[in-house]
Amino acid sequence: MKSSIGEALQISLFGESHGEAIGVLINGLPAGIPLDENYINHFLDLRKPKGKISTSRKERDELHVVSGYFNGHTTGTPLCILFENSNTHSKDYHNDKMRPSHADYTANEKYRGYQDYRGGGHFSGRLTAPLVAAGSIARHILEKKGIVIGTHIAKLQELQDIPFPESEDVAVSVLQELNQTYFPVCDVEVSKQMQERIETLAKTGDSTGGILETMVLGMPTGVGEPFFSSLESVLAKLLFSIPAIKGVEFGLGFEFCNFNGSEVNDAFYMDQETVKTKTNYNGGINGGISNGMPLHLKTVVKPTPSIFIEQETIDYQTKENTTIQIEGRHDPAIVHRARVVVDSVVAIGILDLCIQQFGPAWVGE
Amino acid sequence: MKSSIGEALQISLFGESHGEAIGVLINGLPAGIPLDENYINHFLDLRKPKGKISTSRKERDELHVVSGYFNGHTTGTPLCILFENSNTHSKDYHNDKMRPSHADYTANEKYRGYQDYRGGGHFSGRLTAPLVAAGSIARHILEKKGIVIGTHIAKLQELQDIPFPESEDVAVSVLQELNQTYFPVCDVEVSKQMQERIETLAKTGDSTGGILETMVLGMPTGVGEPFFSSLESVLAKLLFSIPAIKGVEFGLGFEFCNFNGSEVNDAFYMDQETVKTKTNYNGGINGGISNGMPLHLKTVVKPTPSIFIEQETIDYQTKENTTIQIEGRHDPAIVHRARVVVDSVVAIGILDLCIQQFGPAWVGE
Amino acid sequence: MKSSIGEALQISLFGESHGEAIGVLINGLPAGIPLDENYINHFLDLRKPKGKISTSRKERDELHVVSGYFNGHTTGTPLCILFENSNTHSKDYHNDKMRPSHADYTANEKYRGYQDYRGGGHFSGRLTAPLVAAGSIARHILEKKGIVIGTHIAKLQELQDIPFPESEDVAVSVLQELNQTYFPVCDVEVSKQMQERIETLAKTGDSTGGILETMVLGMPTGVGEPFFSSLESVLAKLLFSIPAIKGVEFGLGFEFCNFNGSEVNDAFYMDQETVKTKTNYNGGINGGISNGMPLHLKTVVKPTPSIFIEQETIDYQTKENTTIQIEGRHDPAIVHRARVVVDSVVAIGILDLCIQQFGPAWVGE
Amino acid sequence: MKSSIGEALQISLFGESHGEAIGVLINGLPAGIPLDENYINHFLDLRKPKGKISTSRKERDELHVVSGYFNGHTTGTPLCILFENSNTHSKDYHNDKMRPSHADYTANEKYRGYQDYRGGGHFSGRLTAPLVAAGSIARHILEKKGIVIGTHIAKLQELQDIPFPESEDVAVSVLQELNQTYFPVCDVEVSKQMQERIETLAKTGDSTGGILETMVLGMPTGVGEPFFSSLESVLAKLLFSIPAIKGVEFGLGFEFCNFNGSEVNDAFYMDQETVKTKTNYNGGINGGISNGMPLHLKTVVKPTPSIFIEQETIDYQTKENTTIQIEGRHDPAIVHRARVVVDSVVAIGILDLCIQQFGPAWVGE
Repeated sequence: MKSSIGEALQISLFGESHGEAIGVLINGLPAGIPLDENYINHFLDLRKPKGKISTSRKERDELHVVSGYFNGHTTGTPLCILFENSNTHSKDYHNDKMRPSHADYTANEKYRGYQDYRGGGHFSGRLTAPLVAAGSIARHILEKKGIVIGTHIAKLQELQDIPFPESEDVAVSVLQELNQTYFPVCDVEVSKQMQERIETLAKTGDSTGGILETMVLGMPTGVGEPFFSSLESVLAKLLFSIPAIKGVEFGLGFEFCNFNGSEVNDAFYMDQETVKTKTNYNGGINGGISNGMPLHLKTVVKPTPSIFIEQETIDYQTKENTTIQIEGRHDPAIVHRARVVVDSVVAIGILDLCIQQFGPAWVGE
Repeated sequence: MKSSIGEALQISLFGESHGEAIGVLINGLPAGIPLDENYINHFLDLRKPKGKISTSRKERDELHVVSGYFNGHTTGTPLCILFENSNTHSKDYHNDKMRPSHADYTANEKYRGYQDYRGGGHFSGRLTAPLVAAGSIARHILEKKGIVIGTHIAKLQELQDIPFPESEDVAVSVLQELNQTYFPVCDVEVSKQMQERIETLAKTGDSTGGILETMVLGMPTGVGEPFFSSLESVLAKLLFSIPAIKGVEFGLGFEFCNFNGSEVNDAFYMDQETVKTKTNYNGGINGGISNGMPLHLKTVVKPTPSIFIEQETIDYQTKENTTIQIEGRHDPAIVHRARVVVDSVVAIGILDLCIQQFGPAWVGE
Repeated sequence: MKSSIGEALQISLFGESHGEAIGVLINGLPAGIPLDENYINHFLDLRKPKGKISTSRKERDELHVVSGYFNGHTTGTPLCILFENSNTHSKDYHNDKMRPSHADYTANEKYRGYQDYRGGGHFSGRLTAPLVAAGSIARHILEKKGIVIGTHIAKLQELQDIPFPESEDVAVSVLQELNQTYFPVCDVEVSKQMQERIETLAKTGDSTGGILETMVLGMPTGVGEPFFSSLESVLAKLLFSIPAIKGVEFGLGFEFCNFNGSEVNDAFYMDQETVKTKTNYNGGINGGISNGMPLHLKTVVKPTPSIFIEQETIDYQTKENTTIQIEGRHDPAIVHRARVVVDSVVAIGILDLCIQQFGPAWVGE
Repeated sequence: MKSSIGEALQISLFGESHGEAIGVLINGLPAGIPLDENYINHFLDLRKPKGKISTSRKERDELHVVSGYFNGHTTGTPLCILFENSNTHSKDYHNDKMRPSHADYTANEKYRGYQDYRGGGHFSGRLTAPLVAAGSIARHILEKKGIVIGTHIAKLQELQDIPFPESEDVAVSVLQELNQTYFPVCDVEVSKQMQERIETLAKTGDSTGGILETMVLGMPTGVGEPFFSSLESVLAKLLFSIPAIKGVEFGLGFEFCNFNGSEVNDAFYMDQETVKTKTNYNGGINGGISNGMPLHLKTVVKPTPSIFIEQETIDYQTKENTTIQIEGRHDPAIVHRARVVVDSVVAIGILDLCIQQFGPAWVGE
């Protein structure tokens, strides 16, 4: 299904930025799961623009469960969540001038001018709010099964955060702390530098991207299928659905290029009764299937294309070259906000594969 | 479908390395397409191990069309292609010692010991032969529509090939030449160095990976869907299905991290009647949809995990730590062979999205 | 997808009878289609209970388009339609006593007591309102392509309507008239008798079902796939989704049992330039594919299970035998209202197959 | 997927009657299931033409497992089964004269003349052999879970078999006996009459159809989804995939038309600890979900369209009216052979829904 993803757990997004509402339809959630609105709202809050490093645009992200929820639990039938739109400034956006590196031009070509262009329409980053709602439900289920997900900004321009700790015991508290932090960087000093960099760029009307590193602890073994539903394939499909994500790598990723096999093969050993690997260059995945080690992946978020510096473009009506000066309120960086979207889709992908592998009853056990 | 991928064009793989046969089932190919066996065999040949840089194992990759093909054309009903297995040396492979960074352990966990472990079974790279067959059929259709795909080894350890030319006119002949070359590197001197490096590693029983850069010329605009079936999502899911691929990036990819938005936004301009972008940092995709510029993507192939240097591992039966000395015949590098698999899945993904967008009749127009 | 159906055109239902809203998510509608609210409301109106032959319950079926619609046309992105619930009388319904032949018991078993039981919850016939909305959009598109759908009550208990006319020219006006008629029976006298029968049954608190006969004129040839997506398979899956439908047959259907092959084979002949069949016992389908003749199918609607006569049942809490006296407002017959739901799903199925066969551009041609 | 069906358990058919081989690809079978070839061959044998009531054509239906099977058990990866074709008489079939009520004309329209027309090609009833193979694997799994499926010819022209017994204890042995019988009729005398009727028709070159009644004992409650994956929807989609099936009904089916609700509602009662219904007019399904009572369904098989009496038709090349005299060897009835195909697809549908509901581990428990 074009706007849907998943097999046992299925997610469909709908809505436009300046339409009446946006939302998500979730199928395959077993009956009897309590929804913790505080939990979900916490992650929705991490997605919101805040402070000097964000747009001053206010989005009212009020979770509105329309169906599939009764007496405090999921019913087992389709769960529909709406977010009503408000505080929209249509005049900021409408333009025949195609914004560079946005979907304006491609959407116009694909939908022959019929798309809702206001504020990016269906292509707006705002659609990630319902995605975070769905993902937070999945993440909550996984946490009860001992599976913890967390992400930090590993790199923003030349500024690098410290790496994730190797010890899983230490790592779990790092992930938990990150999940409480709006700007998710482990090293306090680096965090400050990154935020200052964003503020500086904001002053010049410019923007930046960054690299996110995600870790999943407590993964069961055997999750993922050979070939087309490999753990990498399932997660990458979800991750590349997030606007602005332009790269995904697992474990060593592109660094694998620089090493010999003898340097980066992950030797197995018995840690008491448990099979582990001495290193984890493969990011917890062998042959597309989880091996029980922490899942490691990185994603790159490109610089926000909405900058306030004048840019060259075309006028779609006149088919002539022109320039564009984007107005309105836009984020100089979204990498810190994208972090919770990454966590959300990772949770959705893992839960879907787990339900396929272990059956729906596993969820509530 | 777990072992299948695609919407309008669907591909299902089956078979095990040392079973009777492996194969692919293709659904959604319109009727009336002539299959050019020479064309398909050419790409199957590029996938085969050859020379000192490969295993000496010989695979008989004879295309065997079982169904869906009549009087020299596709019938419109399911096309099944088999490759019979032969020349298998089962004794080389069977081992309770889990080979590091292979699927031995995870498959055993997932399938509870029932998997066909001989030669990697269903996880064998040999399964990419039917994938190349399917992909070559797709690629042939795309070529008739003016869509040309090609890949070179951009980097192998520290050795770097020259970049793809910026001019599309020059690029097209570069791609065509690469498609005729077994070891796909543009710079002759670099090609020699890379091959020598592989030979050197082979002598020490070690292996290497590499980075592949792929370009698609002649892409129509409007291909790809918002969110879950974005062009990046669809291609990444296919690319991560290829064993050994651990990273995928589009356009600038992870390099986006190092730039300001003002430096990497792709300005639009009119080139006569055609909308183009002055740069192509987004790799031909905006908002998940093709913008008509060349598609650019990179994938990383990890070093072949089958090395001949002794490695630490466990014995699955005794659950004790031990060492393993892999025997048999294995490739010191597969990056040059993986290239044609990358091209193949890219062709499959693009053709699927094009049929969805333009209808099945587009194929034969 | 569990609550979805379709390939190129996809429909997902959600909501519960006494929840906040019910709705439908439609994917795959091409951009640029004008929605005619009057047209849709007309068919929603035919679905509503009216007069003495129906419940006195009033449902406010106000079409509320949430997404995918802009400036009077579809945008090409997901179309979400909501119907807010109102005028609900929860107290009429809640009961531990399982209503015979309803989904109370099976839903309770499946969802372990977490289902929204009020008014049938997700199993309510009310969910057919969004289905009619989606179907009417599909039907409108088909009509513009010359494909006309219509249904009459062929039989209600022993009362039989006259058969559809054989001439396609006459039939088209019969279908059009039926589509304007609330109680869809061709013979005025039979119509009166059927309605009187329903009124009589209503007085005794009883109910009735009936047989619907549907005809589709203007079908293109070549629609439907061999085996699992045969025209019969696709339509039957949709038709059996409608609550109360317990049988589906095409052409002669179960009557085929009584004839020799020589009596019921449909001989081909040339009618000018067009291939036709002299008879149409196969209902316009050969080998699962439309042959250009009118599509003929019949469905049976079982008697409404909500009757006011005391019935034996169990108390789910005490697990004891007891009796139930259903209260509230219920229809003594829904066969006339189900008619428009049948037409709707037939339209959805045909449009989906046509988009697959002819491409999305066919819709707007 | 066009030629596939199923969610957790997926079946894809391929091949043509006179091509090299036909086959089925099965995905989603858990690892560790032993395949009993005798069991499967027994049902393949019931599908074969035999005696005077069948064609004299001999089909070699040798099960050939190509993949997914190792050391006597399923591996958990795709299971591919081939049946090689042999003893084909191409000259019997090739004809520009479109055989009435066959797929010759519609396939030609759909595939623009590229279809393999020999012996019906992909539309041949021969494709049901792999379907029976897949279904028998599913049926074997279900039997181990206490779910028994059986079918008899309820009616052939005016000849009627005795109904299934009401007692489940008696019914189970009736089903088991039917599953051992080539011509599946309960009443010996009626069986003889039906076979004589077929022989008589065979002598005049004519054919007959019949009505099959199927019962499934031991159904767990809670299987099936609301709306589009209702038990009726899932089974009907599969059943209408079988060539020659033109009607499907559950429980009372079309007879529901003749009764009041008070007469055909199924009253619940406690039978010790078990919830049962006093009658079973709904065929074991309420709201699309199994209620634990026996599943009851009927299908109608139309008369074999291949008759030896001269028929009117067109010549596709000349577009002129003509007559056709079908030659070769054809069945005067296939209703007895279709029986095992019906059982097979019912088994596939139920197993798929059970795996979705109870998880893959349920299979091997």
